[in-house]
Amino acid sequence: MLIFMNILVILGHPNLCSFNHAIAKTAVDNLTEMGHSVIFHDLYAEKFDPTLPLSELQTLTDPQIRLHTEELANTDGLVIIHPIWWGLPPAVIAGWVDRVFRVGVAYRFQEVAPGVGVPVGLLKAKKAVVFNTSNTPQDQEELRCKDAMGNLWKVCMLDTVGVKETERKLFSPMMVSTQQQREGWLKEAAEIVKKQFS
Amino acid sequence: MLIFMNILVILGHPNLCSFNHAIAKTAVDNLTEMGHSVIFHDLYAEKFDPTLPLSELQTLTDPQIRLHTEELANTDGLVIIHPIWWGLPPAVIAGWVDRVFRVGVAYRFQEVAPGVGVPVGLLKAKKAVVFNTSNTPQDQEELRCKDAMGNLWKVCMLDTVGVKETERKLFSPMMVSTQQQREGWLKEAAEIVKKQFS
Repeated sequence: MLIFMNILVILGHPNLCSFNHAIAKTAVDNLTEMGHSVIFHDLYAEKFDPTLPLSELQTLTDPQIRLHTEELANTDGLVIIHPIWWGLPPAVIAGWVDRVFRVGVAYRFQEVAPGVGVPVGLLKAKKAVVFNTSNTPQDQEELRCKDAMGNLWKVCMLDTVGVKETERKLFSPMMVSTQQQREGWLKEAAEIVKKQFS
Repeated sequence: MLIFMNILVILGHPNLCSFNHAIAKTAVDNLTEMGHSVIFHDLYAEKFDPTLPLSELQTLTDPQIRLHTEELANTDGLVIIHPIWWGLPPAVIAGWVDRVFRVGVAYRFQEVAPGVGVPVGLLKAKKAVVFNTSNTPQDQEELRCKDAMGNLWKVCMLDTVGVKETERKLFSPMMVSTQQQREGWLKEAAEIVKKQFS
């Protein structure tokens, strides 16, 4: 039995013709075909401002960020797509996390000692998929950068906000990939999304 | 014999009263006292836009980014200061790297096989210091997030652009630190800067 879910798809890549956009389209199309309700944000296209202002640590007034936090709180699943630049996500993705993973929405602090709080995840979403692209061959990515993004998403970000099951796939190296390889990667992306949200 | 150097100090924190700002002041004051020429950028204060636009992958037209790239190319040393949010730098720092570590300025591609390029660092700066703050105790940071930031700065970012010797110091947990601890940390920061750039 398929349970219909709300799925949030977040994309951070400047080029409309990028493979990242192709992954996003594959994810949105497959999730929609399965009957899920999909909300899709192309953060570059919507000119998402990634800089968390000081005032926002106290009070959220920006309506765009408010909408993002509401969608995050209500989603049953997440799909996040971005390239790896310098071992990190592009600023637009880092800033989406900085601003949207708010205390009281994505997590709360539990006091374990006077003045010492540990974060407890609040999201009802329990599953996520993260797709990354890179130009560094996977073995080099692991050797030099210890493929930090995988653990950062799974453990430091998503697990902290309550998303316990994250499947993550890195496609690389993009720069020298063939058309045939990329078609195979899109099929793989479709299979991962279907498996995770069925 | 002390060789006078040009040192670039980059700060990314929204709060003027933050410990990050105190570290930046300590670094700038000590470097200046040593006779070095210091250029200091408080990226939040100058409203640095961290989003790399697609067009900038081809052509650099933004005068602010052009200035940053020129300063980066001409510096003899770097000091980078930021908190760790979600295991990552704040978006404003991630975006400074995305936009300022440009091909032709910070690195070039060396063709090692047809269509396959490896980056070769171009910066004349050979030394850097990275100061990070976190609210996660260091053992937890290492256990859960594998203290990814240390390796990301040293290996994935700075080594790639030619900065071979990076000293990195994480101060944590900030939230429960005492006045006395923070004073000790600032002394430590001063010593690290003085040692690295003497």
